[in-house]
Amino acid sequence: MLQTLAKGFQRSLRQSSIHHPRQLPFLPKRQLTTMAKNEFYQYSIITALMDGAASDGIPISTLLENGDHGLGTFIDMFGEMIVLDGQVYQMKSDGSIVHISSPSTTRTPFACVTRFEATSTSKASLKGADLKQEINQLLDSHFPTGRNHILAIRMDGTFARIRARTAGGQCKPRESMMAVAERQSEYTFQNIKGTMIGFRCPEWVTGLNVVGHHLHFISDDRQQGGHVLGFQTDGEVEVQLSLLPKFSMELPTEGEFNKAGLVVDAEGIAACE
Amino acid sequence: MLQTLAKGFQRSLRQSSIHHPRQLPFLPKRQLTTMAKNEFYQYSIITALMDGAASDGIPISTLLENGDHGLGTFIDMFGEMIVLDGQVYQMKSDGSIVHISSPSTTRTPFACVTRFEATSTSKASLKGADLKQEINQLLDSHFPTGRNHILAIRMDGTFARIRARTAGGQCKPRESMMAVAERQSEYTFQNIKGTMIGFRCPEWVTGLNVVGHHLHFISDDRQQGGHVLGFQTDGEVEVQLSLLPKFSMELPTEGEFNKAGLVVDAEGIAACE
Repeated sequence: MLQTLAKGFQRSLRQSSIHHPRQLPFLPKRQLTTMAKNEFYQYSIITALMDGAASDGIPISTLLENGDHGLGTFIDMFGEMIVLDGQVYQMKSDGSIVHISSPSTTRTPFACVTRFEATSTSKASLKGADLKQEINQLLDSHFPTGRNHILAIRMDGTFARIRARTAGGQCKPRESMMAVAERQSEYTFQNIKGTMIGFRCPEWVTGLNVVGHHLHFISDDRQQGGHVLGFQTDGEVEVQLSLLPKFSMELPTEGEFNKAGLVVDAEGIAACE
Repeated sequence: MLQTLAKGFQRSLRQSSIHHPRQLPFLPKRQLTTMAKNEFYQYSIITALMDGAASDGIPISTLLENGDHGLGTFIDMFGEMIVLDGQVYQMKSDGSIVHISSPSTTRTPFACVTRFEATSTSKASLKGADLKQEINQLLDSHFPTGRNHILAIRMDGTFARIRARTAGGQCKPRESMMAVAERQSEYTFQNIKGTMIGFRCPEWVTGLNVVGHHLHFISDDRQQGGHVLGFQTDGEVEVQLSLLPKFSMELPTEGEFNKAGLVVDAEGIAACE
């Protein structure tokens, strides 16, 4: 999320303080998961998205059986997914946000979740100048021996500034994630209250998922959000963390996944994220 | 398994038709697993072995809860593991083979298993001239859309020739798998009846496991075996296969794993395997 953006990204739309007339209702925590706490689950692999395999996937309801905290995308990479307290939101490139009220009829080609239960809770202020290092210092202070494990991250509070992007979706079948990313919308939110949800993954996830931090954001009023590119907190935010020593993954057995070349492109993934 | 051996390997011991006075008893299939059929499970990652993190692990009994067919190694990389019908054997570099009769008191730092149930059974003759291509053709003929999935492989029959190696173990803590491999013993078995057990893994396992074919062999009399480097069948052998679309992995949360650099070295892994 924190890498220099590829040149093509500069064409992206920049907006701030977009007005959304319809506020989404506040929804209670939903618990569908049958998974043990703090285990990592993902459907498909990021390399399949890089190869443009995004036309089918599992129902969101199946995803929610495996966790209540996470992120991902939707069919044809149409928007960013955030899974917060078992509720799923689709954050679209036009700035609108849709609550997935019928998880059994909406599908995802790639997503990752955990049944999150924080084992470490603290408050932290992040200035965003060298955010990657700041986040690493924060996480390492709580999990000094956790660098080889996936960590689940949740931050709640007021953010002075968030730079976020939302993918607009594929224009044609099998269009690569790199091509989709070139058309993404980019937003800057200021003085915004909300929640960041995501993970920090070690290098061994290369090809499977995003190495490093990967955070999605949604505002408390559920009107603004996206894939986080950078941010700065407004004073302290609440930070909840857990370490996920078990990893499980389910792969598509039909369709585009089987046809994809799946040549791991670590640099390409980093450029997109 | 089929790569050109590194120079250091040439120092390895070469023997054939070793005599083993004590024959291991034939053991019935043991079923401890609670895992669903044809799901892939692994403990730790191959990159941890590359980094020499091999001094601790899970009990073999825990491994067997996750599958009855597979391979791996033992504490300090002392020998090759084969899991056949839920029975586990340690194949040592001195040519001896030990049946693990007490799985709860023997541990593994790295192993992978499945609860194997073949969905495809056939007979095949493999000449071994270009074995990698021959095996791929065989597997692809049964799973034409399976190239992006892990396949479980079992071959039973008479082999005209098998070239195998067994790792002798670490000489000091944290010694790398590459260094251990330089001291491995290499054997050639001729006209030998037995079973090959293993997997073919796609490129996305890079860093986690061995990309390509990975087979271990044990003779029917349980006197000879090892990590397969090459082979030729004597006529047809029985080939059983299944496709494993679910992947699960458990990582060590203490000890050497946390200290290891875990920098993925795909070429190094290939050279060792």
